[in-house]
Amino acid sequence: MRLHHVGLAVADLGAAVDLYRTALGAELEREGRSQTEDMEYALMRTGDSELELMHSSDPESPVGKFLSKRGPGVHHVAFEVDDLAAELDRLRGAGYEIVGDVRTGVHGTRVAFVHPRSMGGVLTELVEK
Amino acid sequence: MRLHHVGLAVADLGAAVDLYRTALGAELEREGRSQTEDMEYALMRTGDSELELMHSSDPESPVGKFLSKRGPGVHHVAFEVDDLAAELDRLRGAGYEIVGDVRTGVHGTRVAFVHPRSMGGVLTELVEK
Repeated sequence: MRLHHVGLAVADLGAAVDLYRTALGAELEREGRSQTEDMEYALMRTGDSELELMHSSDPESPVGKFLSKRGPGVHHVAFEVDDLAAELDRLRGAGYEIVGDVRTGVHGTRVAFVHPRSMGGVLTELVEK
Repeated sequence: MRLHHVGLAVADLGAAVDLYRTALGAELEREGRSQTEDMEYALMRTGDSELELMHSSDPESPVGKFLSKRGPGVHHVAFEVDDLAAELDRLRGAGYEIVGDVRTGVHGTRVAFVHPRSMGGVLTELVEK
């Protein structure tokens, strides 16, 4: 399963885009706003994988809560799957805890999250191809 | 710059290898012990990038300290560079804070770390090709 992206919660989206461009030479692919997650994001290309920079000024949003509680840093790690529904069935059947519902992710495909409790402390996103 | 691997601090190395194999179909590439970092590690292939699972039972080691303080989770994110010395010169010149010395990483090439203070809360490893 391919490591698709690493999601980073950032204090300032523009500053973070500049940082990853300057420090690592990552290329900005796209910026946007997710209504579902109530956040702004920027996708930056780093080889075969991406960085998903995320910011929300709403303290009740998922990313806003994370920023208030833990500050900027790694928010989740995402892997690509061929068939999300089948994968979720398999994981649920094996006792993994899925967080929330399947939704449309910032790449326009379906995504779901596996709870850090089931994944050694790492919030894990599954992104359908 | 390519996302080379994501480093995860884990509570139990064998259990974590099983978890990432079962949950994500990641393949174990190699297990070993790093004297430099006083830790055991396992490298798991996830597409073009890897997961580096790390455990230390020594509470004074870098990974042991992290586990005591924050528990299991994402420890660092690593990017591949062509010329580490040149990259470190460039980053130091631009005011980025480098942690510790250049050392030999678990892939047998030279590595260095950029402080989370300089990288939006993310401990960032640079791995020479």
